Amino acid sequence: MALNVVVLVGGVGGAKLAYGLAQIIPPENLTVIVNTGDDFWYYGLRICPDLDTIMYTLGGVVDTTNGWGVGGDTINLLDALRRYGEDVWFRLGDQDVATHLLRTQALRNGEPLTAITARLAQALGIKPTLLPMTDDPVATMVNTVEYGEIEFQTYFVRYRWQPTIQSLRLSGIESARMTPAVCHALEQADVILIGPSNPWLSIDPILAVPGLRDLITSRSIPRVAVTPIVGGRALKGPAAKLMVELGYDPSPQAVVQHYGEVINGFVYDKSDDPGPLSLPHVAGFETIMKSDNDKIFLAQNVIEWIKSWVSF
Amino acid sequence: MALNVVVLVGGVGGAKLAYGLAQIIPPENLTVIVNTGDDFWYYGLRICPDLDTIMYTLGGVVDTTNGWGVGGDTINLLDALRRYGEDVWFRLGDQDVATHLLRTQALRNGEPLTAITARLAQALGIKPTLLPMTDDPVATMVNTVEYGEIEFQTYFVRYRWQPTIQSLRLSGIESARMTPAVCHALEQADVILIGPSNPWLSIDPILAVPGLRDLITSRSIPRVAVTPIVGGRALKGPAAKLMVELGYDPSPQAVVQHYGEVINGFVYDKSDDPGPLSLPHVAGFETIMKSDNDKIFLAQNVIEWIKSWVSF
Repeated sequence: MALNVVVLVGGVGGAKLAYGLAQIIPPENLTVIVNTGDDFWYYGLRICPDLDTIMYTLGGVVDTTNGWGVGGDTINLLDALRRYGEDVWFRLGDQDVATHLLRTQALRNGEPLTAITARLAQALGIKPTLLPMTDDPVATMVNTVEYGEIEFQTYFVRYRWQPTIQSLRLSGIESARMTPAVCHALEQADVILIGPSNPWLSIDPILAVPGLRDLITSRSIPRVAVTPIVGGRALKGPAAKLMVELGYDPSPQAVVQHYGEVINGFVYDKSDDPGPLSLPHVAGFETIMKSDNDKIFLAQNVIEWIKSWVSF
Repeated sequence: MALNVVVLVGGVGGAKLAYGLAQIIPPENLTVIVNTGDDFWYYGLRICPDLDTIMYTLGGVVDTTNGWGVGGDTINLLDALRRYGEDVWFRLGDQDVATHLLRTQALRNGEPLTAITARLAQALGIKPTLLPMTDDPVATMVNTVEYGEIEFQTYFVRYRWQPTIQSLRLSGIESARMTPAVCHALEQADVILIGPSNPWLSIDPILAVPGLRDLITSRSIPRVAVTPIVGGRALKGPAAKLMVELGYDPSPQAVVQHYGEVINGFVYDKSDDPGPLSLPHVAGFETIMKSDNDKIFLAQNVIEWIKSWVSF
């Protein structure tokens, strides 16, 4: 019997690992739980950047250069907005907006994000289960030195993650509810993975959904994070910069410490010497995923390694 | 002093005359009042086809082959919707959707359609005044033999105006209010024109806004319609077909009779012999507008002719 694997992810890095897992795990045994703290409203559209990245990656239509957006997409709509005098700072690809339109219309009709995501993913031929962390709106707010508290996408895209972070806040998290689908997936999981995503910006929002962290921690199964930090730097995005600003050393140790009892295993990059990590299970693999083969290889290594230290 | 000219229009034909007028009349003296009975919701977007056609035409970006839409526009968003399994029957051009997004977002924010239209038109460099017939939603409903009562765009685009019309109904017209801007323009007008648009589908909704027909009829000024029927046929669209279905002869006479006391002047196509028309002022001009010069020429002919029978 195949193992039920659940992987928690944010955007590009997590999507790559999810892609690798999807190539080696039967779809009915793989669930991807996705951060929705990045979601925002833009020109009346509800945009879910991490869900989109995962969908496009697993659907095989992602822009492989950027790691997000639809490959070969055009920006004729965006250019037209600019002709109307709009200061458009978030890339709205023409094909991408089809996703936003369908999702927004369905949300306005009262359909839960989980159901919408399932429908869109199915239409893209995606077979593993994709789940938003919650159906309720949660917004990651970034308190910066330069601009005060701003929405995540304003920090991340508009200001290209250059502002200095003082603190983070998850608006709406108190009333966010874990969905039955997320609860079921975590309860049925044989392995829980945390993708090489930003622990603070991508994974913390998922873990902060009331009840979710406790449910994960309560499971006596392998719970393994893959490092987003290699050689003291983030593979992509602001993880290392953010860690320094929040007073941490940008190291695998600090990531392990941050996850605390959520994980009992950790994968660092084999080029690193992470030193002693206070976890029962630690391994070093090639974690930098450039090609599709890299993604599959990392997924295989992680799953085989986990199988080696647990008797399922 | 230049004459204040107000022209009532629907889509393509009216837009062409408005374009001609805009080339010969100072912008502060020209107001275009546009049918909004065709407006509808599609994928969560509020689409105003006639306003769009007028904006794109006066803004010089219209697709000159179709007479509507943005010239050179792509349909990558539409193709992406189809990949999601959607049966998209209304053409959503990528640049076009920028207009729909901005308008829809502003409407959801409570901005009146008149103000939104002014803003979008200004951004496109349009100097004459463009006014929707009302800020309130009105929907032209088409009662057909084949499908019962359907929305206008369903009749017009989805079914390519092939269903047989039994009757028409303007949903919401009772509570539609004439806007101060429309009222002011009609009160200040020295000339009121009705474009070569479909009298039943494009002009009747405008005239049906409570108070509007009476206000026009009360003005002792030239009130002149340009024929949409040439040689017993409509230049574009279902006007002639509709007239037959509703029991009229597709002739200039029937159009004149339909407008009744709203008009005191009529322009037929010079290729036609309309016979006796019970109006004080009637003239035949070349009304088929293929080139920009045709549009200007017709506008000039109509205005000069009106000036010849009135001392301003």
